[in-house]
Amino acid sequence: MKPERGPLRVALLGCGVVGSEVVRLLREQADDLAARVGTPLELAGVAVRRPERVRAGVDPALVTTDAQGLVTRDDVDIVVEVIGGIEPARTLMLEAMKTGKSVVTANKALLAEDGATLFAAAREYGADLYYEASVAGAIPLLRPLRESLVGDHVHRVLGIVNGTTNYILDQMDSNGAGFNEALEEAQALGYAEADPTADVEGFDAAAKAAILAQLAFHTPVTAADVHREGITEVSAADVAGAKGMDCVVKLLAICERVPSDGGAQDGRNGRGVSVRVYPAMIPRSHPLASVREAYNAVFVEAESAGSLMFYGAGAGGAPTASAVLGDLVAVARNVVGGTPGPVEVTYAKLPVLPMGETVTRYYIHLDVTDEAGVLAAVAAEFARHEVSIQAVRQVGLGEEAQLVVVTHRAPDAALSAVVEGLRGLDSVREVASVMRVEGEE
Amino acid sequence: MKPERGPLRVALLGCGVVGSEVVRLLREQADDLAARVGTPLELAGVAVRRPERVRAGVDPALVTTDAQGLVTRDDVDIVVEVIGGIEPARTLMLEAMKTGKSVVTANKALLAEDGATLFAAAREYGADLYYEASVAGAIPLLRPLRESLVGDHVHRVLGIVNGTTNYILDQMDSNGAGFNEALEEAQALGYAEADPTADVEGFDAAAKAAILAQLAFHTPVTAADVHREGITEVSAADVAGAKGMDCVVKLLAICERVPSDGGAQDGRNGRGVSVRVYPAMIPRSHPLASVREAYNAVFVEAESAGSLMFYGAGAGGAPTASAVLGDLVAVARNVVGGTPGPVEVTYAKLPVLPMGETVTRYYIHLDVTDEAGVLAAVAAEFARHEVSIQAVRQVGLGEEAQLVVVTHRAPDAALSAVVEGLRGLDSVREVASVMRVEGEE
Repeated sequence: MKPERGPLRVALLGCGVVGSEVVRLLREQADDLAARVGTPLELAGVAVRRPERVRAGVDPALVTTDAQGLVTRDDVDIVVEVIGGIEPARTLMLEAMKTGKSVVTANKALLAEDGATLFAAAREYGADLYYEASVAGAIPLLRPLRESLVGDHVHRVLGIVNGTTNYILDQMDSNGAGFNEALEEAQALGYAEADPTADVEGFDAAAKAAILAQLAFHTPVTAADVHREGITEVSAADVAGAKGMDCVVKLLAICERVPSDGGAQDGRNGRGVSVRVYPAMIPRSHPLASVREAYNAVFVEAESAGSLMFYGAGAGGAPTASAVLGDLVAVARNVVGGTPGPVEVTYAKLPVLPMGETVTRYYIHLDVTDEAGVLAAVAAEFARHEVSIQAVRQVGLGEEAQLVVVTHRAPDAALSAVVEGLRGLDSVREVASVMRVEGEE
Repeated sequence: MKPERGPLRVALLGCGVVGSEVVRLLREQADDLAARVGTPLELAGVAVRRPERVRAGVDPALVTTDAQGLVTRDDVDIVVEVIGGIEPARTLMLEAMKTGKSVVTANKALLAEDGATLFAAAREYGADLYYEASVAGAIPLLRPLRESLVGDHVHRVLGIVNGTTNYILDQMDSNGAGFNEALEEAQALGYAEADPTADVEGFDAAAKAAILAQLAFHTPVTAADVHREGITEVSAADVAGAKGMDCVVKLLAICERVPSDGGAQDGRNGRGVSVRVYPAMIPRSHPLASVREAYNAVFVEAESAGSLMFYGAGAGGAPTASAVLGDLVAVARNVVGGTPGPVEVTYAKLPVLPMGETVTRYYIHLDVTDEAGVLAAVAAEFARHEVSIQAVRQVGLGEEAQLVVVTHRAPDAALSAVVEGLRGLDSVREVASVMRVEGEE
């Protein structure tokens, strides 16, 4: 038996929406937490920039503006970082680990930009670094990927990981609204921020995709490696076109192994991984299609486990705090036991392939002249780039003549080249819409 | 730094569908597993009753019929039990822990019947006992409940945890089949066994409900504590009635806290917990309603995390083996680190309430005489037991006159008493269908 020890002391960095929920849960769940950890968890201090803004329920005697002093204090065992952003969060977390503390964080931006530095520090100093709250709020997702599926072989992670854009696209799908109209409504309801760039341009989803890909494929991936397209160009016509195909448009984060071309040297890992974020059509029968409003869901395909889906609220103070507390208990148990948990390992080191080599499918909507030979000219353009057509449909006549083409799977570069070629055809008046199609063919 | 150690040696008990998949994954994923554990995992022996039946891919030199000898061998570090059933599995697992081995098991029946004995042994001998594979196959569910939501307060777990019955009910819903017809089809397709009792009478689901309730509420619950009703009485008329209410019939495992009547002494834990398995109507808009065929899904409602859902294949050799491997890596890491993981704690010790005190809603379908005063007589019966009616609808006339009544929430005992009372009314020719309604009111 190990000797009895006193309470574990927790330093909290940041006390906004998430931080004040963490404080509340530490107080209200104190008995349960102590029973699970084996010793009480005690708040040692709360570092904030503006103490006058700290909400009711936080003991003023614990509040400090000296975050650096707090994380290096001898009487602190664990640091919880919910400030967000790159600095000072990175420096504070590194200081904490250097002085023997373990860290729980919800900081997706930092993990996606410079996770390697943090993981290296965790390894060097024997500290824990847990970050379940950084992706998909309270949905337990990183821990299952990291631990439950560790004996399995993950082929693909396909997820809706940004609630704001899902809310906007869901509105566009439900009532035919355009992007701007749906964005304004999302802002009025508090689902989108005044400056919605991080969400609607896909930066938030790309950071999460990097974190997921790294865990799923044991390979270093940063936000800069992620091919990113936002939803600002998605039109009401695109959404209507998806409906016509019995599909729905979702902003997807996709992490997948790209199978080898048959070269045996690639082995089971394939040629590399593809990590990307873009709006795409998925069939309405796909489990992700029914994810409404601001909910998140992540679909995982693994060799043995088959298809799994994790669904829940992807953001918000209370759900994020729930994930932080789950990590805090795990870290606290490791501190009590004297053994840190698993540090991320990126031993597979697979290459992240450029978007052009990623294999996907296209939906292409063309306004065409209504004359003999149009289809032949269009089909020739596809053939020239060795892209196989799955279905083609002509709609309307005369000035309204349109072609809808759906391809089989092909490298994205070939598909892009086809679209370029179509734009140059005399018989094509306009390429009205181009969208990728995901989910099974 | 701890000293380097040799491979960890794994003894496998049972080599059927799941066991042979475990052997395959141990071989094919060997490099990944070694990287995650920090040292290779090596198969030390495979105990079976009939060696001649062991499938190809298992080294015959490792096969033994002496399970007792295998689990007590000094060169074995971890025991994986996939025999199933109560004995000899229990004795073998206890022997293994007594001689210092940690255990991974998929044995839901044993855990639901006598988990307390196993947990006590794990605690006494400082061994790990992991059992993710016992509920919902490869869906990571126990670990999230046990670890991710540990700082949260779970209100309810509502799940489809038996694939056979979900397949049958889905067929009945999709094509109007009766129970026997759907069961025969499920048997022909291999979704149901020749003797389907464990599935269709709800025994399998009840064992899983006991395991889930214990984890969610930190309270000892055995299969005997679970109120259990199977699906053999579900008729095509019940399913059609559900459709008329925009509902679907599912076999649900429900674990929930029963709120106090306002008595402050009950605190946040409520009066106790209710754990039950029965077919019930849920609205088609509920995420569980869209779980088709033999898939499983579990919906968790927690105070901070909100609503979460976990979805995937709930059975089968490969998914179950994936869950076993996830546990095996966790246990192996604990062995390498010298610290066992969390042992189940049932510190809350909440009472499991009898079904009569469980609060639920009823759907009641009556064949009635078509005369004045029927509705008044029926309504009086509800009023006599203080059950409030949410909606009542009359269908048909004369010989075909029918009443459909849906209640508000009330104690199950009161609802049962209402049904008894209705059976005694002259104006009620038959109580054609009674079914509980779950999901939000």
